[in-house]
Amino acid sequence: MEYERIIIGIDPGTNVMGYGLLGVNGKKLSVIAMGVIKLSKFDDHYLRLRRIFERVTGLIEQYLPDELAIEAPFFGKNVQSMLKLGRAQGVAMAAALARDIPIVEYAPLKIKQAITGNGAASKEQVAEMLRRILSIPKENMPDFLDATDALGAALCHYYESSRPKPDKGCSSWKEFIAKNPSRVK
Amino acid sequence: MEYERIIIGIDPGTNVMGYGLLGVNGKKLSVIAMGVIKLSKFDDHYLRLRRIFERVTGLIEQYLPDELAIEAPFFGKNVQSMLKLGRAQGVAMAAALARDIPIVEYAPLKIKQAITGNGAASKEQVAEMLRRILSIPKENMPDFLDATDALGAALCHYYESSRPKPDKGCSSWKEFIAKNPSRVK
Repeated sequence: MEYERIIIGIDPGTNVMGYGLLGVNGKKLSVIAMGVIKLSKFDDHYLRLRRIFERVTGLIEQYLPDELAIEAPFFGKNVQSMLKLGRAQGVAMAAALARDIPIVEYAPLKIKQAITGNGAASKEQVAEMLRRILSIPKENMPDFLDATDALGAALCHYYESSRPKPDKGCSSWKEFIAKNPSRVK
Repeated sequence: MEYERIIIGIDPGTNVMGYGLLGVNGKKLSVIAMGVIKLSKFDDHYLRLRRIFERVTGLIEQYLPDELAIEAPFFGKNVQSMLKLGRAQGVAMAAALARDIPIVEYAPLKIKQAITGNGAASKEQVAEMLRRILSIPKENMPDFLDATDALGAALCHYYESSRPKPDKGCSSWKEFIAKNPSRVK
Protein backbone atom coordinates (compact mmCIF):
# COMPACT_ATOMS: atom_id res chain seq x y z
CA MET A 1 0.00 0.00 0.00
CA GLU A 2 1.33 3.41 -0.99
CA TYR A 3 0.70 6.46 1.17
CA GLU A 4 0.98 10.13 0.29
CA ARG A 5 2.36 10.81 3.69
CA ILE A 6 3.44 8.74 6.68
CA ILE A 7 3.71 10.13 10.22
CA ILE A 8 5.50 8.17 12.95
CA GLY A 9 4.38 8.93 16.50
CA ILE A 10 6.66 8.16 19.43
CA ASP A 11 5.93 8.12 23.15
CA PRO A 12 9.37 7.75 24.69
CA GLY A 13 9.87 6.40 28.15
CA THR A 14 12.74 4.72 29.92
CA ASN A 15 10.72 1.56 30.69
CA VAL A 16 8.41 1.27 27.69
CA MET A 17 8.50 3.24 24.47
CA GLY A 18 5.38 3.36 22.31
CA TYR A 19 5.24 3.89 18.55
CA GLY A 20 2.48 4.25 15.99
CA LEU A 21 2.61 4.79 12.23
CA LEU A 22 -0.19 6.70 10.54
CA GLY A 23 -0.66 6.54 6.76
CA VAL A 24 -2.41 9.41 4.99
CA ASN A 25 -4.07 9.25 1.56
CA GLY A 26 -6.15 12.36 0.91
CA LYS A 27 -8.51 12.45 3.87
CA LYS A 28 -8.25 8.73 4.46
CA LEU A 29 -6.18 7.75 7.50
CA SER A 30 -4.85 4.25 8.21
CA VAL A 31 -2.87 2.67 11.02
CA ILE A 32 0.18 1.09 9.38
CA ALA A 33 1.69 -0.31 12.57
CA MET A 34 1.79 0.27 16.29
CA GLY A 35 3.42 -1.33 19.27
CA VAL A 36 5.82 -0.93 22.13
CA ILE A 37 9.51 -1.39 22.71
CA LYS A 38 9.95 -2.94 26.14
CA LEU A 39 13.04 -1.72 27.92
CA SER A 40 12.56 -2.90 31.49
CA LYS A 41 14.28 -6.22 30.71
CA PHE A 42 17.57 -4.33 30.32
CA ASP A 43 19.16 -3.36 33.63
CA ASP A 44 21.80 -1.29 31.89
CA HIS A 45 20.81 2.29 31.07
CA TYR A 46 22.97 2.34 27.90
CA LEU A 47 21.50 -0.91 26.63
CA ARG A 48 18.08 0.73 26.92
CA LEU A 49 19.20 3.82 25.03
CA ARG A 50 20.82 1.67 22.40
CA ARG A 51 17.68 -0.43 22.03
CA ILE A 52 15.60 2.75 21.52
CA PHE A 53 18.03 4.05 18.88
CA GLU A 54 18.14 0.72 17.04
CA ARG A 55 14.37 0.16 17.07
CA VAL A 56 13.46 3.71 16.03
CA THR A 57 16.10 3.52 13.29
CA GLY A 58 14.61 0.18 12.22
CA LEU A 59 11.06 1.60 12.09
CA ILE A 60 12.27 4.57 10.04
CA GLU A 61 14.11 2.33 7.58
CA GLN A 62 11.14 -0.02 7.26
CA TYR A 63 8.31 2.51 6.88
CA LEU A 64 10.14 5.63 5.62
CA PRO A 65 7.99 8.15 7.53
CA ASP A 66 7.93 11.80 6.39
CA GLU A 67 7.65 13.29 9.87
CA LEU A 68 8.19 12.26 13.47
CA ALA A 69 5.73 13.42 16.13
CA ILE A 70 6.83 12.98 19.71
CA GLU A 71 4.84 13.13 22.93
CA ALA A 72 6.96 15.30 25.18
CA PRO A 73 6.04 16.27 28.71
CA PHE A 74 7.79 19.47 29.72
CA PHE A 75 7.51 18.90 33.44
CA GLY A 76 8.29 15.92 35.58
CA LYS A 77 8.68 14.69 39.08
CA ASN A 78 12.35 15.47 39.55
CA VAL A 79 15.54 16.45 37.74
CA GLN A 80 16.89 12.88 37.71
CA SER A 81 13.87 11.43 35.91
CA MET A 82 13.82 14.37 33.48
CA LEU A 83 17.49 13.80 32.61
CA LYS A 84 16.74 10.13 31.87
CA LEU A 85 13.65 11.04 29.86
CA GLY A 86 15.66 13.64 27.95
CA ARG A 87 18.24 11.00 27.05
CA ALA A 88 15.52 8.60 25.83
CA GLN A 89 14.00 11.40 23.75
CA GLY A 90 17.46 12.40 22.51
CA VAL A 91 18.40 8.99 21.12
CA ALA A 92 14.96 8.60 19.48
CA MET A 93 15.34 12.07 17.94
CA ALA A 94 18.86 11.25 16.75
CA ALA A 95 17.44 8.36 14.69
CA ALA A 96 15.20 10.90 12.89
CA LEU A 97 17.85 13.65 12.69
CA ALA A 98 20.26 11.18 11.06
CA ARG A 99 17.77 10.78 8.20
CA ASP A 100 16.64 14.41 7.85
CA ILE A 101 13.16 13.67 9.16
CA PRO A 102 11.50 16.74 10.69
CA ILE A 103 10.57 16.41 14.36
CA VAL A 104 7.56 18.00 16.02
CA GLU A 105 6.64 17.65 19.66
CA TYR A 106 3.34 17.90 21.46
CA ALA A 107 2.58 18.08 25.15
CA PRO A 108 0.36 15.24 26.46
CA LEU A 109 -2.45 17.73 27.22
CA LYS A 110 -2.38 19.00 23.63
CA ILE A 111 -2.63 15.45 22.24
CA LYS A 112 -5.53 14.51 24.53
CA GLN A 113 -7.28 17.76 23.59
CA ALA A 114 -6.81 17.13 19.85
CA ILE A 115 -8.03 13.51 19.97
CA THR A 116 -10.85 13.62 22.53
CA GLY A 117 -11.62 17.32 22.89
CA ASN A 118 -10.64 17.08 26.56
CA GLY A 119 -7.09 17.81 27.75
CA ALA A 120 -7.74 15.87 30.95
CA ALA A 121 -8.90 12.66 29.19
CA SER A 122 -7.52 9.32 30.42
CA LYS A 123 -5.20 7.17 28.32
CA GLU A 124 -8.07 4.68 27.96
CA GLN A 125 -10.34 7.41 26.56
CA VAL A 126 -7.63 8.44 24.07
CA ALA A 127 -7.26 4.78 23.00
CA GLU A 128 -11.03 4.33 22.57
CA MET A 129 -11.35 7.53 20.55
CA LEU A 130 -8.43 6.50 18.29
CA ARG A 131 -10.12 3.11 17.77
CA ARG A 132 -13.27 4.83 16.53
CA ILE A 133 -11.63 7.57 14.44
CA LEU A 134 -9.23 5.16 12.72
CA SER A 135 -11.67 2.19 12.61
CA ILE A 136 -9.24 -0.16 14.33
CA PRO A 137 -10.73 -3.64 14.88
CA LYS A 138 -10.99 -4.34 18.62
CA GLU A 139 -8.78 -7.42 18.32
CA ASN A 140 -6.02 -5.25 16.83
CA MET A 141 -5.91 -2.86 19.77
CA PRO A 142 -2.56 -3.08 21.59
CA ASP A 143 -2.21 -4.27 25.18
CA PHE A 144 -0.13 -1.25 26.09
CA LEU A 145 -1.45 2.28 26.19
CA ASP A 146 2.01 3.62 25.30
CA ALA A 147 1.29 2.40 21.74
CA THR A 148 -2.01 4.31 21.46
CA ASP A 149 -0.41 7.36 23.10
CA ALA A 150 2.21 7.32 20.33
CA LEU A 151 -0.45 6.92 17.64
CA GLY A 152 -2.26 9.84 19.28
CA ALA A 153 0.85 12.02 18.83
CA ALA A 154 0.88 11.12 15.11
CA LEU A 155 -2.84 11.88 14.68
CA CYS A 156 -2.51 15.12 16.66
CA HIS A 157 0.25 16.19 14.28
CA TYR A 158 -1.92 15.31 11.28
CA TYR A 159 -4.73 17.51 12.64
CA GLU A 160 -2.35 20.37 13.48
CA SER A 161 -0.63 20.32 10.10
CA SER A 162 -3.89 19.98 8.12
CA ARG A 163 -5.61 22.90 9.84
CA PRO A 164 -5.99 26.00 7.68
CA LYS A 165 -3.38 28.51 8.82
CA PRO A 166 -4.83 31.55 10.57
CA ASP A 167 -5.16 34.59 8.26
CA LYS A 168 -2.19 36.80 8.93
CA GLY A 169 -4.18 39.91 7.94
CA CYS A 170 -2.88 42.55 5.59
CA SER A 171 -0.26 45.08 6.44
CA SER A 172 -1.36 47.71 3.92
CA TRP A 173 -4.39 48.91 1.98
CA LYS A 174 -2.59 48.08 -1.25
CA GLU A 175 -2.07 44.50 -0.10
CA PHE A 176 -5.71 44.25 0.98
CA ILE A 177 -6.88 45.32 -2.49
CA ALA A 178 -4.52 42.88 -4.18
CA LYS A 179 -5.76 40.01 -1.98
CA ASN A 180 -9.44 40.93 -2.04
CA PRO A 181 -10.30 42.45 -5.42
CA SER A 182 -13.99 41.47 -5.12
CA ARG A 183 -14.37 43.38 -1.82
CA VAL A 184 -13.33 46.68 -3.36
CA LYS A 185 -16.17 48.45 -5.14
CA MET B 1 50.46 8.49 14.36
CA GLU B 2 49.03 5.19 15.57
CA TYR B 3 47.61 4.83 19.05
CA GLU B 4 46.92 1.68 21.07
CA ARG B 5 43.82 3.27 22.43
CA ILE B 6 41.86 6.47 21.81
CA ILE B 7 39.40 7.96 24.29
CA ILE B 8 37.01 10.70 23.23
CA GLY B 9 35.80 12.97 26.04
CA ILE B 10 32.59 14.94 25.66
CA ASP B 11 31.19 17.76 27.77
CA PRO B 12 27.68 18.19 26.37
CA GLY B 13 25.77 21.38 26.80
CA THR B 14 22.94 23.02 24.91
CA ASN B 15 24.95 26.19 24.14
CA VAL B 16 28.49 24.87 23.78
CA MET B 17 29.66 21.27 23.58
CA GLY B 18 33.29 20.49 24.34
CA TYR B 19 35.29 17.55 23.02
CA GLY B 20 38.77 16.21 23.54
CA LEU B 21 40.56 13.19 22.08
CA LEU B 22 43.23 11.46 24.13
CA GLY B 23 45.68 9.05 22.50
CA VAL B 24 47.30 6.33 24.61
CA ASN B 25 50.52 4.48 23.77
CA GLY B 26 51.72 2.46 26.74
CA LYS B 27 52.06 5.10 29.46
CA LYS B 28 52.45 7.93 26.98
CA LEU B 29 49.43 10.17 26.64
CA SER B 30 48.86 12.66 23.80
CA VAL B 31 46.18 15.16 22.97
CA ILE B 32 45.00 14.29 19.44
CA ALA B 33 42.41 17.05 19.15
CA MET B 34 40.21 19.26 21.26
CA GLY B 35 37.71 21.99 20.68
CA VAL B 36 34.13 23.10 21.00
CA ILE B 37 30.97 22.87 18.95
CA LYS B 38 29.16 26.19 19.26
CA LEU B 39 25.42 25.83 19.29
CA SER B 40 24.19 29.25 20.38
CA LYS B 41 24.09 30.44 16.76
CA PHE B 42 21.17 28.08 16.15
CA ASP B 43 17.86 29.34 17.53
CA ASP B 44 16.14 26.08 16.75
CA HIS B 45 16.45 23.38 19.41
CA TYR B 46 16.41 20.57 16.82
CA LEU B 47 19.10 22.20 14.72
CA ARG B 48 21.29 22.22 17.85
CA LEU B 49 20.61 18.54 18.53
CA ARG B 50 21.26 17.71 14.90
CA ARG B 51 24.53 19.64 14.96
CA ILE B 52 25.66 17.71 18.05
CA PHE B 53 24.79 14.39 16.42
CA GLU B 54 26.55 15.28 13.16
CA ARG B 55 29.70 16.64 14.80
CA VAL B 56 30.09 13.78 17.30
CA THR B 57 29.48 11.29 14.46
CA GLY B 58 32.12 13.16 12.41
CA LEU B 59 34.68 13.05 15.25
CA ILE B 60 34.04 9.32 15.73
CA GLU B 61 34.45 8.61 12.01
CA GLN B 62 37.60 10.74 11.81
CA TYR B 63 39.43 9.49 14.90
CA LEU B 64 37.85 6.06 15.53
CA PRO B 65 37.91 6.27 19.34
CA ASP B 66 37.65 3.07 21.39
CA GLU B 67 35.61 4.59 24.21
CA LEU B 68 33.52 7.65 24.90
CA ALA B 69 33.76 9.37 28.30
CA ILE B 70 31.07 11.89 29.07
CA GLU B 71 30.90 14.54 31.77
CA ALA B 72 27.45 14.14 33.21
CA PRO B 73 26.05 16.19 36.06
CA PHE B 74 23.30 14.30 37.83
CA PHE B 75 21.67 17.34 39.35
CA GLY B 76 20.65 20.63 37.85
CA LYS B 77 18.77 23.81 38.42
CA ASN B 78 15.37 22.70 37.19
CA VAL B 79 13.51 19.97 35.34
CA GLN B 80 13.36 21.97 32.08
CA SER B 81 17.11 22.46 31.85
CA MET B 82 17.72 18.82 32.78
CA LEU B 83 15.38 17.66 30.00
CA LYS B 84 17.32 19.77 27.49
CA LEU B 85 20.65 18.54 28.84
CA GLY B 86 19.38 14.96 28.69
CA ARG B 87 18.48 15.43 25.03
CA ALA B 88 21.92 16.86 24.23
CA GLN B 89 23.55 13.93 26.04
CA GLY B 90 21.17 11.51 24.30
CA VAL B 91 22.03 12.56 20.75
CA ALA B 92 25.78 12.55 21.55
CA MET B 93 25.42 9.08 23.06
CA ALA B 94 23.42 7.87 20.03
CA ALA B 95 26.40 8.72 17.80
CA ALA B 96 28.53 6.35 19.93
CA LEU B 97 25.81 3.69 20.35
CA ALA B 98 25.37 3.57 16.56
CA ARG B 99 29.00 2.49 16.27
CA ASP B 100 29.19 0.11 19.24
CA ILE B 101 31.46 2.43 21.21
CA PRO B 102 31.21 1.87 24.97
CA ILE B 103 30.07 4.91 26.97
CA VAL B 104 31.20 5.79 30.47
CA GLU B 105 30.08 8.80 32.43
CA TYR B 106 31.69 10.74 35.22
CA ALA B 107 30.26 13.40 37.51
CA PRO B 108 32.07 16.79 37.31
CA LEU B 109 33.29 16.38 40.90
CA LYS B 110 34.83 13.00 40.08
CA ILE B 111 36.69 14.45 37.07
CA LYS B 112 38.03 17.42 39.05
CA GLN B 113 39.12 15.05 41.82
CA ALA B 114 40.90 12.74 39.37
CA ILE B 115 42.73 15.54 37.54
CA THR B 116 43.60 17.99 40.34
CA GLY B 117 43.09 15.97 43.51
CA ASN B 118 40.39 18.45 44.53
CA GLY B 119 36.74 17.89 43.70
CA ALA B 120 36.03 21.59 44.19
CA ALA B 121 38.71 22.79 41.74
CA SER B 122 37.78 25.52 39.25
CA LYS B 123 37.59 24.88 35.51
CA GLU B 124 40.73 27.02 35.13
CA GLN B 125 42.61 24.82 37.61
CA VAL B 126 41.52 21.70 35.71
CA ALA B 127 42.72 23.28 32.42
CA GLU B 128 46.10 24.26 33.93
CA MET B 129 46.62 20.79 35.39
CA LEU B 130 45.75 19.15 32.06
CA ARG B 131 48.24 21.48 30.33
CA ARG B 132 51.02 20.28 32.64
CA ILE B 133 50.12 16.56 32.70
CA LEU B 134 49.72 16.34 28.91
CA SER B 135 52.52 18.86 28.09
CA ILE B 136 50.21 21.01 25.96
CA PRO B 137 52.03 24.10 24.57
CA LYS B 138 50.39 27.25 25.96
CA GLU B 139 49.54 28.49 22.48
CA ASN B 140 47.57 25.32 21.82
CA MET B 141 45.32 25.76 24.83
CA PRO B 142 41.70 26.33 23.76
CA ASP B 143 39.79 29.53 24.40
CA PHE B 144 36.86 27.62 25.82
CA LEU B 145 36.97 25.69 29.06
CA ASP B 146 34.33 23.28 27.72
CA ALA B 147 37.13 21.77 25.60
CA THR B 148 39.45 21.16 28.58
CA ASP B 149 36.50 19.86 30.62
CA ALA B 150 35.89 17.28 27.89
CA LEU B 151 39.58 16.35 27.77
CA GLY B 152 39.39 16.02 31.56
CA ALA B 153 36.60 13.46 31.20
CA ALA B 154 38.80 11.44 28.81
CA LEU B 155 41.83 11.58 31.13
CA CYS B 156 39.68 10.73 34.15
CA HIS B 157 38.47 7.65 32.29
CA TYR B 158 42.04 6.69 31.43
CA TYR B 159 43.01 6.89 35.13
CA GLU B 160 39.93 4.97 36.26
CA SER B 161 40.35 2.19 33.72
CA SER B 162 44.13 1.87 34.31
CA ARG B 163 43.85 1.57 38.09
CA PRO B 164 44.54 -1.87 39.47
CA LYS B 165 41.21 -3.41 40.44
CA PRO B 166 40.68 -3.69 44.20
CA ASP B 167 41.51 -7.18 45.54
CA LYS B 168 38.24 -8.97 45.92
CA GLY B 169 39.64 -11.11 48.75
CA CYS B 170 39.37 -14.87 48.85
CA SER B 171 36.20 -16.76 49.46
CA SER B 172 37.83 -19.92 50.74
CA TRP B 173 41.00 -21.20 52.42
CA LYS B 174 41.72 -23.31 49.33
CA GLU B 175 41.59 -20.22 47.12
CA PHE B 176 43.83 -18.34 49.56
CA ILE B 177 46.47 -21.07 49.36
CA ALA B 178 46.24 -21.19 45.58
CA LYS B 179 46.69 -17.41 45.35
CA ASN B 180 49.34 -17.05 48.06
CA PRO B 181 51.56 -20.17 48.03
CA SER B 182 54.49 -18.30 49.65
CA ARG B 183 52.40 -17.31 52.66
CA VAL B 184 51.62 -20.88 53.61
CA LYS B 185 54.40 -22.58 55.54
